[in-house]
Amino acid sequence: MAKIRLGMVGGGKDAFIGAVHRIAARIDGDYDLVAGALSSTPARARESGAALGLDPARSYGSYEEMAEKEAARPDGIRAVSIVTPNHMHAGPAIEFLKRGIHVICDKPLTATMEDALALEAAAKASKALFILTHNYTGYPMIRQARDMVASGELGKIRVVQVEYAQDWLTEEAGADNKQADWRTDPARSGAGGAIGDIGTHAHNLACFVTGLAVESLAADLQSFVPGRRVDDNANILLRMQGGARGVLWCSQVAPGCENALRLRVFGEKGGLEWAQEDPNYLWFTPFGQAKRLLTRRGAGANAAANAVSRTPGGHPEGYLEGFANIYAGAARAIRAADAGETPDTALLPGISAGIDGMRFITAAIRSSQENAAWVAL
Amino acid sequence: MAKIRLGMVGGGKDAFIGAVHRIAARIDGDYDLVAGALSSTPARARESGAALGLDPARSYGSYEEMAEKEAARPDGIRAVSIVTPNHMHAGPAIEFLKRGIHVICDKPLTATMEDALALEAAAKASKALFILTHNYTGYPMIRQARDMVASGELGKIRVVQVEYAQDWLTEEAGADNKQADWRTDPARSGAGGAIGDIGTHAHNLACFVTGLAVESLAADLQSFVPGRRVDDNANILLRMQGGARGVLWCSQVAPGCENALRLRVFGEKGGLEWAQEDPNYLWFTPFGQAKRLLTRRGAGANAAANAVSRTPGGHPEGYLEGFANIYAGAARAIRAADAGETPDTALLPGISAGIDGMRFITAAIRSSQENAAWVAL
Amino acid sequence: MAKIRLGMVGGGKDAFIGAVHRIAARIDGDYDLVAGALSSTPARARESGAALGLDPARSYGSYEEMAEKEAARPDGIRAVSIVTPNHMHAGPAIEFLKRGIHVICDKPLTATMEDALALEAAAKASKALFILTHNYTGYPMIRQARDMVASGELGKIRVVQVEYAQDWLTEEAGADNKQADWRTDPARSGAGGAIGDIGTHAHNLACFVTGLAVESLAADLQSFVPGRRVDDNANILLRMQGGARGVLWCSQVAPGCENALRLRVFGEKGGLEWAQEDPNYLWFTPFGQAKRLLTRRGAGANAAANAVSRTPGGHPEGYLEGFANIYAGAARAIRAADAGETPDTALLPGISAGIDGMRFITAAIRSSQENAAWVAL
Amino acid sequence: MAKIRLGMVGGGKDAFIGAVHRIAARIDGDYDLVAGALSSTPARARESGAALGLDPARSYGSYEEMAEKEAARPDGIRAVSIVTPNHMHAGPAIEFLKRGIHVICDKPLTATMEDALALEAAAKASKALFILTHNYTGYPMIRQARDMVASGELGKIRVVQVEYAQDWLTEEAGADNKQADWRTDPARSGAGGAIGDIGTHAHNLACFVTGLAVESLAADLQSFVPGRRVDDNANILLRMQGGARGVLWCSQVAPGCENALRLRVFGEKGGLEWAQEDPNYLWFTPFGQAKRLLTRRGAGANAAANAVSRTPGGHPEGYLEGFANIYAGAARAIRAADAGETPDTALLPGISAGIDGMRFITAAIRSSQENAAWVAL
Repeated sequence: MAKIRLGMVGGGKDAFIGAVHRIAARIDGDYDLVAGALSSTPARARESGAALGLDPARSYGSYEEMAEKEAARPDGIRAVSIVTPNHMHAGPAIEFLKRGIHVICDKPLTATMEDALALEAAAKASKALFILTHNYTGYPMIRQARDMVASGELGKIRVVQVEYAQDWLTEEAGADNKQADWRTDPARSGAGGAIGDIGTHAHNLACFVTGLAVESLAADLQSFVPGRRVDDNANILLRMQGGARGVLWCSQVAPGCENALRLRVFGEKGGLEWAQEDPNYLWFTPFGQAKRLLTRRGAGANAAANAVSRTPGGHPEGYLEGFANIYAGAARAIRAADAGETPDTALLPGISAGIDGMRFITAAIRSSQENAAWVAL
Repeated sequence: MAKIRLGMVGGGKDAFIGAVHRIAARIDGDYDLVAGALSSTPARARESGAALGLDPARSYGSYEEMAEKEAARPDGIRAVSIVTPNHMHAGPAIEFLKRGIHVICDKPLTATMEDALALEAAAKASKALFILTHNYTGYPMIRQARDMVASGELGKIRVVQVEYAQDWLTEEAGADNKQADWRTDPARSGAGGAIGDIGTHAHNLACFVTGLAVESLAADLQSFVPGRRVDDNANILLRMQGGARGVLWCSQVAPGCENALRLRVFGEKGGLEWAQEDPNYLWFTPFGQAKRLLTRRGAGANAAANAVSRTPGGHPEGYLEGFANIYAGAARAIRAADAGETPDTALLPGISAGIDGMRFITAAIRSSQENAAWVAL
Repeated sequence: MAKIRLGMVGGGKDAFIGAVHRIAARIDGDYDLVAGALSSTPARARESGAALGLDPARSYGSYEEMAEKEAARPDGIRAVSIVTPNHMHAGPAIEFLKRGIHVICDKPLTATMEDALALEAAAKASKALFILTHNYTGYPMIRQARDMVASGELGKIRVVQVEYAQDWLTEEAGADNKQADWRTDPARSGAGGAIGDIGTHAHNLACFVTGLAVESLAADLQSFVPGRRVDDNANILLRMQGGARGVLWCSQVAPGCENALRLRVFGEKGGLEWAQEDPNYLWFTPFGQAKRLLTRRGAGANAAANAVSRTPGGHPEGYLEGFANIYAGAARAIRAADAGETPDTALLPGISAGIDGMRFITAAIRSSQENAAWVAL
Repeated sequence: MAKIRLGMVGGGKDAFIGAVHRIAARIDGDYDLVAGALSSTPARARESGAALGLDPARSYGSYEEMAEKEAARPDGIRAVSIVTPNHMHAGPAIEFLKRGIHVICDKPLTATMEDALALEAAAKASKALFILTHNYTGYPMIRQARDMVASGELGKIRVVQVEYAQDWLTEEAGADNKQADWRTDPARSGAGGAIGDIGTHAHNLACFVTGLAVESLAADLQSFVPGRRVDDNANILLRMQGGARGVLWCSQVAPGCENALRLRVFGEKGGLEWAQEDPNYLWFTPFGQAKRLLTRRGAGANAAANAVSRTPGGHPEGYLEGFANIYAGAARAIRAADAGETPDTALLPGISAGIDGMRFITAAIRSSQENAAWVAL
């Protein structure tokens, strides 16, 4: 099968998430990275392109130039990965969507709701696909969990506990910490700090697995580190569709937590528990029976999990493979779309998941400003 | 050392917590159980007394009779354990306190705030001690955690996550389930269901370890099982002294959770994590260093933990030993008091912890009735 | 029910295991400790007796005196706990057995095979019971495991992996470490070091759970710490009845291991895994199905486990409760024997388990001396 | 940097390890798979080549043809991955080495010692590199462990416990299980069953981490499943350089074990523990201090681990990334060699590790035939 010609916006040297996207795109061999506007600084863009072995002619100084020139080439890119800081998502995404080039964009959708709506309009107007890398939905055991809920194995969902805790912003980060620098800058990251960066992942994951939307929330946001301009901890009550109730906690000031995204779902008939740092395991308790440790590709794994697994049980897959599952799903959808077929996007987070995430951020901030009053999403 | 002559109110056949109190009282050999009003049904009281080997003359049909007669005996009881349902705590406690007999009472304090205040008055007026069995504070690693926070090892506390999840009330319990019967009956248990039975433990533990009171809370209570008259799940935002923020979740409808009381505390300098079901372990991360698994009597155990440990590291102690530490502390305090010395009650939960717990229940219910508005404790 | 009058030999101040036996005897209220020869130093014996509240007249200077005088009293002890160093087991045990007083003795049986055989003869000649505190067999989930194997849930047993690792003898212990002092002295401990102290527990547990004897072994023993006169690490191949094969590893020089006794049993139809430091859990995998976490008193617990459990699931029991189950079983057997009934000793380790343990030690030492040649037990 | 042109022998449809090698080769973008002799059945080879998008002209019917033609092309492959069953390693490896094409070969080295020695001779005679994919040495925390031992953090090594347990051969596998079919056929797999397939990994890992060779072993091998022609379980005593002693257990009939490779190393100053199924963690206990959980890229990670890590702490890497680290190391070495520099192969398993593995298998079989007599390697 021919590889999909891929471009990238952002992701130059020292960027974290760009390198992740590139590995994710390579793992299953579906893409060829052939073009890039890897930095907003042209010299740095060129240098980064050279390091990646890009044809210098396709290592662009700006995304606008890249969009124009690639769209004009007969062998131009068919898809582009956007891995810039949040405030720089909407611009390039719209530009490529306009030209019918599929967009794979990092989350959260944008830095502002205004940008988000503009991007939504562009996505709806385009024949090209828009995929948002809520990568944690790509984990096999998360697919299994979603499938188990959907098929009624847990009964009606009552309680959802989701949390995403880190500790890397426990202290004020120096200016040389590039990641901390932009992620705590409202102009680049958006009004949400922890809730935008990781809270949206938690929100998305809870909805993805349960199939239930958050209807309203009551949020208590904090900014513990002196001088920090965005939230670094958030405690949020959730009211979800169908009467389910929950809590979302996210934090970047929780010493001992590296990347502790964790989801627990309890229904009338059973409970599930999953932790991102040990992603090959899913705990399942049918009420009244012994707890079971379901393992990826193990005896208890279901078809939804096996469909996105590469290695046998006990040969752990990790973050990059989960991320790659988004890219692999995107590749299937892109090929179908380009072949004139209807792409299967049921499991692919897209523009509506992105808008939901922006509504979550906006509602959380407003609720917190109103002393944790309930705000509908 | 002479044993303390002990009586018991409640705790007849089939009672759960009465048997626990009796073992806790025996483990360190400080008490002799010599009298009881073990049931409100006289025949059952006698039968239960016989099964425990009580002198029939001291197996009473009512706590009033027991209080009167024991107070009159030269070899009368010096202390009494009250292990009745919540609505039956205040009556006997006041009766014994009035007669100068020390009271060891199960939690929560009472079923109503009115009773609680009457009991508080009685406790203040008596020379006898009043000890409330918030038994989870007796665990060695909880003592260690409290000590670590107090000595500044975590720095200023920012975030507290406490939860207490069970699953035994996931479905409607039959009338033959004696425990479920009274614990879901507001007349006997009090207005709080899960928040009274287990939420108070979680609240107490968070305050005990951090040394910080909850100043206000915003609570969303649910009663998921049809027909249930009390809450069986509660999601609660906490604002604590000194700016710490937190979440308290308690549930009795979470399949897969047996008795999952868990506390996490994060400060400016480090984080702690403890789980009741694995009580010999305490996770400690000094920010910027590797996570450490502190074990009871292990290399990282401190004096506060070692003071209440009986066995070497790796020889696990459990629920009963933690409970026994409350009884052992009570014995020391009772002996001191009876010797005319000032008893050391710094680590013993007493009447004020009981009142705090009642305020927590009351505030949670009111907040939930007001759509999770903030309510001060 | 009347309590059983109990005496104790050894277990004076600073002794570890004596205090454990006393708590184990108290937990279920079956015994009254009324006499003791608590130390071989008469002054220390008296002092220890006073600390325990013994009647001075029954705090003896020697076990011989105690045996003689207690046997002559109408209210003399009915049972005695022997908690001395290994070389001091046989003497008192024989003395009490001769007088029809039941013996509860710490393990290993004796320091030498000669003593063991003398004790065996005395036990067989006496109407009194002899119980050896292989306490780890008292854990509920170990009872469950034994029952599951016996009932065929694992199919025919193929592979047994048992290990018991500690680290407290990693370095040379100072002379002030009373435990290390006698446990590494062949004259008091016996020729076996780690294999006698903890290897016998591992051997006993593997046999207890599988119901299979070790037929022969090939042992490689080491003494890593310079100057140590007994083994401190042992790697042993096992051949068990019915063709099962296994490994027993015990060590006292394994940094990071506190009291890491762990058993894994694999049969044609399933596998089990249990670890002493987390004793309320038993992992069970029926071949071809998901792994299950069976918990004490949880949904997957069986009658054998529930029969020796005191608290509900999630309220952890520990080392002392497991130990107490031996004392509780002994109490039932003693009462039956004293009532002229046939005591049920099926689950109680006794003289034959003790002889088996001595044969294990002897065979391991001989095998190691012969360069790990196979030696039959 | 130009990609390394890679060929593959074996790894057609339904093969397990071929797909793993291809992903491992793609993850870091160092290789281009351009040629293959993917099956010994020519039609299947062509079909598999087409599925992988190979140029039909470079999808060969035999490795001999591939070696000859690729060596003749100016754009011929620079390296070849050999992923055939064991008995088909030596033939192609020698063929490519002769032509100066670098070889990356799956383990164990060969099916027979005779083949192994022939391959060793060819490797020594060739300027091309020979790399054996003992992939578990590629895990970051294994690199860390090796480095910690080498730098003396554990002191002199005393005890090594290594095990590799699986359960997939618990029952007789049907003929349609392609993996089971060849791996239990001595003609294709070699005389060793479990010891060859997974025991060699365990042996290699123990030596890699400790830096110590196994000097002699005493092995008890079993073949539990009726009709099985190779061992499916092995219990082996180890004597290692410098006086270290250990046990190696490998099994394919241990229900509940998926791919449970686990290593524990204890020295005079500390202990380490690592489990392949949770590879991002390394437990470290400096004797006399609390146990530490070192995490990949966490605060306790060292330079050796960080050098082969791609994602931040808490973003788990897995089996494929560990495998890819072998390919990445091979790429650096290949580029250096092709540039006329001396390649750094210190951490790359090569021909001598392969010969060591064959000696391990041979010694284990001989020892077992001689009733577990000690056999020098």
